[in-house]
Amino acid sequence: MAGNPVNFINGTQIEGRRFDVLGIGNAIVDVIAHADDDFLETNGLTKGAMTLIDAATAEDLYARMGAAVESSGGSAANTIAGLSSLGGRGAFIGKVRNDQLGGIFAHDIQALGVDFATAPAIEGAPTARCLIFVTADAQRTMQTFLGASATLGSADIDSAAVRGAAVTYLEGYLWDPPPAKEAFEKAATIAHAAGNMVALTLSDAFCVDRHRADFRRLVEGHVDILFANEAEIKSLYQVDDFDDALQHVRGHCQVAALTRSEKGSVVISGDEVHVIDAVRIPQVVDTTGAGDLYAAGFLFGLTRGRSLHDCGRMGAICAAEAISHYGARPETPLADLVRQALG
Amino acid sequence: MAGNPVNFINGTQIEGRRFDVLGIGNAIVDVIAHADDDFLETNGLTKGAMTLIDAATAEDLYARMGAAVESSGGSAANTIAGLSSLGGRGAFIGKVRNDQLGGIFAHDIQALGVDFATAPAIEGAPTARCLIFVTADAQRTMQTFLGASATLGSADIDSAAVRGAAVTYLEGYLWDPPPAKEAFEKAATIAHAAGNMVALTLSDAFCVDRHRADFRRLVEGHVDILFANEAEIKSLYQVDDFDDALQHVRGHCQVAALTRSEKGSVVISGDEVHVIDAVRIPQVVDTTGAGDLYAAGFLFGLTRGRSLHDCGRMGAICAAEAISHYGARPETPLADLVRQALG
Repeated sequence: MAGNPVNFINGTQIEGRRFDVLGIGNAIVDVIAHADDDFLETNGLTKGAMTLIDAATAEDLYARMGAAVESSGGSAANTIAGLSSLGGRGAFIGKVRNDQLGGIFAHDIQALGVDFATAPAIEGAPTARCLIFVTADAQRTMQTFLGASATLGSADIDSAAVRGAAVTYLEGYLWDPPPAKEAFEKAATIAHAAGNMVALTLSDAFCVDRHRADFRRLVEGHVDILFANEAEIKSLYQVDDFDDALQHVRGHCQVAALTRSEKGSVVISGDEVHVIDAVRIPQVVDTTGAGDLYAAGFLFGLTRGRSLHDCGRMGAICAAEAISHYGARPETPLADLVRQALG
Repeated sequence: MAGNPVNFINGTQIEGRRFDVLGIGNAIVDVIAHADDDFLETNGLTKGAMTLIDAATAEDLYARMGAAVESSGGSAANTIAGLSSLGGRGAFIGKVRNDQLGGIFAHDIQALGVDFATAPAIEGAPTARCLIFVTADAQRTMQTFLGASATLGSADIDSAAVRGAAVTYLEGYLWDPPPAKEAFEKAATIAHAAGNMVALTLSDAFCVDRHRADFRRLVEGHVDILFANEAEIKSLYQVDDFDDALQHVRGHCQVAALTRSEKGSVVISGDEVHVIDAVRIPQVVDTTGAGDLYAAGFLFGLTRGRSLHDCGRMGAICAAEAISHYGARPETPLADLVRQALG
């Protein structure tokens, strides 16, 4: 591949690894519908955020939701789907129930060539779903019933898969269900022991609020590559200014890729700072999955030895695809888009 | 409402009716994915057609299908969804199983304000699904596992709903599962006894092949409003020429609306013949649902007393919306589109 080898990935033997990236996250089916601001207000939904709901609330809210479309989702799962669409070798660990939605989740990710072998739960709560309300401004408001995905535990971590992945990518949302947190820590330990890298996305500003101390500890000691948007990184360090947040994160992990919606992204590594423009598209339809696919493009570039600037551009290209249609998974093969833009 | 009252609907008291249109059809969830022509050939799929498959074939084919999106479907159900999006009062009768896909089907149609009260099956085959392969030419190839929808029987026909609907609309696909055929005949009899109209869509040229004698008998004696595309009407009369088919159907039913894809449609009623242009759109994405939404627009116009020419134009507007995106159900409120175009 063209591009400069990235020095901080030198310790990782990409060539000898089975997977470029292993994602660990909540295994969720998205239920996507249009809604207007009045609906959000009437139902007390926090616009733009991801809120956890219980089974009864999910049922109640679904009954009030408009006609919807179902699509496999989940933050880290979307990233791995994107990586696969770019031509990368991905694996995913996450928990579904052995029900129809669980079958849909497994089918969709496996159909992309992703290794997904986590045993489904055979009792208990059904497969997780995320009710996504997309408003006319293309903003998405997410209400998640974690269901079976909350039962992911350390026993589900396939050590061989973690050892075999150049990067283990974890979503911050995993901090919500307690057993997944242990799974997360187990995976990070195995990854590092095998000389691999650990990446984390902070997921959501409210999620950062819920787990700030844990996330700071992770970023300072356990995470090599951090993804966060502006709201999340400001929430992590409880500062009002993006540049202040940037100074805080600098030096804590090898690479931080901070996304800023239409303002593009900033990638920091030691003394390197790259400011990368967003890719303009004719119409933003639905921002669901923008961050997930940014991470897909970035990590694909990284594991292919591209420069950090190129990694950021790949992220921007993939994010632009995600927001040009409803749903978080890519509709156009991302490899084609990246090839057209970057060669 | 503006427009000429249509004489053949005079016998029907629209004003006193609870519903404009009651649809009866297979209750299906669509599973939609991209595919290329090689995939169709390798798997022996007949491009553009609807083929029935059994549970094992459905499972096998799904395993080979790409990552998909799920959306409520079913031909008559799509028509009623479209009618509702136009502001019409719709009802639907069809059979799901009490499983997750059945819940999705019921939610989506009820969320549109459609009356859907058919009791779900509590045992037996799961909710029907239609695996839809969309090729780059926007053609859709459908493989349907009828599942629970095949158990719709005359006991499921809500006589009061049929009496309360100005038009009872039946899909030809219903002829495939034998118990539904009886349900179909029961509904037609009740509708006519109540002074209401019966509409039929021939659904698919291969479906016409399977049931030609029955469909001819129906068209000649029981159907007031017939919908068919060019291939279907030519198959019904086993003629090679559209104009020959048109001459055959003339006089058999009060109204025939014959659709011809990009060539628009021809509406015939006695001596009236209206040739209606297709509505041009920038890009045809997926033709799934084109005929279903044409019928929605047409029937909405009819039950609102619009001229046959206007009914055809409404059909064309709704069909154009359907083919401009993936999936059969409207994404844009159809009432807005019709208002902009016709006032």
